[in-house]
Amino acid sequence: MESDHAENSVARLSTMGSQAPPDVSARLRSRTQKALTKGVPTAVVYCERTFGQIDGKTANGLVRHSQAYRVLAVIDSELEGRDSGEVLDNVPNGIPVVEDLEATISLEVNIPDTLIYGMAPSTGKMSPTDRGVVLDAIALGMNIVSGLHEYLGDDAEIKSAADAANVTIRDIRKPRPSKDMRLFDGSVSEVKAIRIAVLGTDCAIGKRTTAIILTDALNARGINTILVGTGQTGLMQGAKHGIAMDAVPPQFCCGELERVIVAASCGDEPDVVLIEGQGALSHPAFCTSAFILRGSQPQAVILQHAPKRAHRCDFPTMPMPEPKNEIALIEAFSDTRVIGITLNHEAMTDAEVAQAIGSLSRTLGVPVTDALSRPEVHLADMVLSAFPQLQPVPLVAAE
Amino acid sequence: MESDHAENSVARLSTMGSQAPPDVSARLRSRTQKALTKGVPTAVVYCERTFGQIDGKTANGLVRHSQAYRVLAVIDSELEGRDSGEVLDNVPNGIPVVEDLEATISLEVNIPDTLIYGMAPSTGKMSPTDRGVVLDAIALGMNIVSGLHEYLGDDAEIKSAADAANVTIRDIRKPRPSKDMRLFDGSVSEVKAIRIAVLGTDCAIGKRTTAIILTDALNARGINTILVGTGQTGLMQGAKHGIAMDAVPPQFCCGELERVIVAASCGDEPDVVLIEGQGALSHPAFCTSAFILRGSQPQAVILQHAPKRAHRCDFPTMPMPEPKNEIALIEAFSDTRVIGITLNHEAMTDAEVAQAIGSLSRTLGVPVTDALSRPEVHLADMVLSAFPQLQPVPLVAAE
Repeated sequence: MESDHAENSVARLSTMGSQAPPDVSARLRSRTQKALTKGVPTAVVYCERTFGQIDGKTANGLVRHSQAYRVLAVIDSELEGRDSGEVLDNVPNGIPVVEDLEATISLEVNIPDTLIYGMAPSTGKMSPTDRGVVLDAIALGMNIVSGLHEYLGDDAEIKSAADAANVTIRDIRKPRPSKDMRLFDGSVSEVKAIRIAVLGTDCAIGKRTTAIILTDALNARGINTILVGTGQTGLMQGAKHGIAMDAVPPQFCCGELERVIVAASCGDEPDVVLIEGQGALSHPAFCTSAFILRGSQPQAVILQHAPKRAHRCDFPTMPMPEPKNEIALIEAFSDTRVIGITLNHEAMTDAEVAQAIGSLSRTLGVPVTDALSRPEVHLADMVLSAFPQLQPVPLVAAE
Repeated sequence: MESDHAENSVARLSTMGSQAPPDVSARLRSRTQKALTKGVPTAVVYCERTFGQIDGKTANGLVRHSQAYRVLAVIDSELEGRDSGEVLDNVPNGIPVVEDLEATISLEVNIPDTLIYGMAPSTGKMSPTDRGVVLDAIALGMNIVSGLHEYLGDDAEIKSAADAANVTIRDIRKPRPSKDMRLFDGSVSEVKAIRIAVLGTDCAIGKRTTAIILTDALNARGINTILVGTGQTGLMQGAKHGIAMDAVPPQFCCGELERVIVAASCGDEPDVVLIEGQGALSHPAFCTSAFILRGSQPQAVILQHAPKRAHRCDFPTMPMPEPKNEIALIEAFSDTRVIGITLNHEAMTDAEVAQAIGSLSRTLGVPVTDALSRPEVHLADMVLSAFPQLQPVPLVAAE
């Protein structure tokens, strides 16, 4: 059964765009352990029929990394009985996938504190069936966290149920009131830290995962690095700095991102600020990265790419861009330079990853690595070699 | 006094970005006459201390062109007693500028139907003083129309006053509920009409004005042309097709614009669809044109430019882009071509306009004209020469 599961998981992931690395167990396990801190609220992640898939990317991200919630279980009736880490990454993490909310409750002594709506459908909307689960969780006294564009706190039925049950609704994507938002004013250019945006050639391709690993890798080398999240998953994971760009009115997108970067830089005096990208600059439907480039004015860009992805995720008629064309577009659009490529190895063998690293670095003339399957030092070196003014602590001391 | 006024108006406009042409009286008068249709609601445009300026661009647009409201007066205490057409364009239009709401009422037999909040501050927000005017208008039984990002209908005090007075609040910028918005799906590429986006090198530079004149000019030549508005002013003016892009969540920007274009094309079977741009693709703060290019997938772009503008409006530290760089950026970002340049002649003499037309057309290799001060036929020919498949009626018959 074990090997069947592993095979199924690889097959499922291969076609669905998540990352299924063969050799990342120690790294992921240590990250998961860190997440299991006592004292943070407990949570169940609702991800029916989408866990491990692209539309389940919020749940996938939370299972891999969460500072804000201690994840007890994932709800997905199709994967009931599996270990969520094994489904995602072939590395058991002790977080079970259960059939439904009732099954979760029966596992625990206490009712979990929170239901996280862990699906990020490209439509941003909730199905009628899912509404019942949210209402059940409220009736059980659980707080609700949602990254939907449809704000649950504005839904009359859900709001009144939450009021009656005295629970909170946290709509991650709901921007600040427009009267409190601000316009871009150019102050980001006075930030002393080096700003690097992690963009990609598609949605749901691993930009956030790479950015998290790079943040850790640079900090491990003594380079004070902070990550500014721009999507709902990063905010749910507990990102200290961030904004859900996809829900901010375009008028304020550049200014609000600038505000977050400036504020983060004042507080922490970082050497490097990494900025999570969204979609792809070339994407016909999701080009929020245009605002990310304008609002963050990055000195450098790292581009995440999936060599075996045939078409844009959720858009079977839209071919993937070539990395060289995406690089040209980014460098034409913004006064910046692409300093390296990071791979999403979906549907690739380890040999294919090695081959892609070799051929892409030769043809594009920049370093190429895979944040998950290759040593973190390669990823950190991509930044260190581009910015020699950064002085890392020696590797021996850092490791 | 008359000449003083004219001089003041030119001085004011020269530094503030509006268009003050010397020779457009007949054209503007006929447009204004069309707007004075009986049966449409009457309106007073509130534009305190900003009429004729960039932050008054909503009022400026409404005075020049309105199908949805019959504008009775403009409120701006600094220009009290002037004729609004003379302030804007040196062409009296019979719409007075008055000191305050009280003065407006005293001019009319009936209380006007509507107060239009005619300022479009770059912050998108209402000042505390302005709030009093809105509440006074509500108390007088007037409906309110606003293009602010701060939705007046969501303001508890204003909403309850409006409910008590039984008047309506129309927040032009308020997008549809997110559950009703849709994603880009590529269907715009199946639209038979030629799609042309009117972009610019800055905000408030005359994109909408040029697009309106071009729409009329092409229709006059028998080319069935519709205009899709993308800003609040166009929607207030009564644009049949449009969406306030600056307020739509980025996730839905491309899809919602595509929806409007597809719907407009199905209904009217146009030969040409013109799409109003926003800001500038190169603008650090306002690059909504990225979504406009992605969502409309235009075959061609017309670029509006103000040769004498020294810096981006409202951003004294940001220099204006060179047209050739903006063209390169647009053509790198999108699979399209720039077919011509249209000028905003602010701060220019007629001789300077002629000189700029000559030199820009030589260096850029595309036709150049000024929609307001040069014959409309030049503007229409820019499109007709780029798309020979369009078959205009002979000029003699059309004129």
